[in-house]
Amino acid sequence: MNDLIARKMQKADLGVVVSLLADDELGRSREDKTKVVHADYLRAFEHIDSDVNQYAAIFEINGELIGCLQITFIPGLSRRGSLRGQIEGVRVSRDFRGKGYGAKMIAWAITKCRDRGCKMVQLTTDKKRENAIQFYEKFGFVKSHEGFKLTLASVLE
Amino acid sequence: MNDLIARKMQKADLGVVVSLLADDELGRSREDKTKVVHADYLRAFEHIDSDVNQYAAIFEINGELIGCLQITFIPGLSRRGSLRGQIEGVRVSRDFRGKGYGAKMIAWAITKCRDRGCKMVQLTTDKKRENAIQFYEKFGFVKSHEGFKLTLASVLE
Repeated sequence: MNDLIARKMQKADLGVVVSLLADDELGRSREDKTKVVHADYLRAFEHIDSDVNQYAAIFEINGELIGCLQITFIPGLSRRGSLRGQIEGVRVSRDFRGKGYGAKMIAWAITKCRDRGCKMVQLTTDKKRENAIQFYEKFGFVKSHEGFKLTLASVLE
Repeated sequence: MNDLIARKMQKADLGVVVSLLADDELGRSREDKTKVVHADYLRAFEHIDSDVNQYAAIFEINGELIGCLQITFIPGLSRRGSLRGQIEGVRVSRDFRGKGYGAKMIAWAITKCRDRGCKMVQLTTDKKRENAIQFYEKFGFVKSHEGFKLTLASVLE
């Protein structure tokens, strides 16, 4: 396995990242894949980038962007004021799947949360993603909770 | 039902809020209930209060604090850069449970998310909380996801 490098996402990465989000069984129908990056993604990137409690990470091998994920650090009162790290938007480029890179990315994210002082790491996975569920269980994640979603507005309207 | 008033949590509310968090089937063993509010809660409150993407709400009836919840606004790239609202730490004071106040609180939180421009509201509920699961389904929340948690450190160590 070649060296995997993690770094903070930059605006220039957006085009590749949007392609990654779209090249997904469930994401295909809900992303905008036109060549020019849609202004909605740019706005979301600025929002993420200006929030110290957000970390959008990208992963590279030999300068090629092969994966991404986002960590949200959530300060909360419960569990004696514990900080939580929440992982969202985990994607690995099609050609690099099944090679152990996803595991390296999640291990990196867990370390990032630990270094920041999180007492817990949390994430939700669509119940249709059976492989992902087994994958997270191997890390010691426990599916103790129901992950509820309520859609307020269609994304591609 | 008396009028339920929602407002932003203040530092002075912390003592009552911590009691609320502790007076819970699952929270009992993981909160610090000593009379003086533990410094960890104060630190967490400052962290929440200084983050524009956090909104800790408390609910009052005739000036009595009867409930709390926290909303985290999460900017993300997926779903064309959709903002999500995440609800955590929903608690209703024991004497006011089963009277419909919880439903009013969640309806308030959903409206807050909609007003902020969220395309989705999400939350997780411990699978052991059977009543809570039915409660959220009535709002249209779909338990499409597994909610994974990975504990990094014991809370009361």
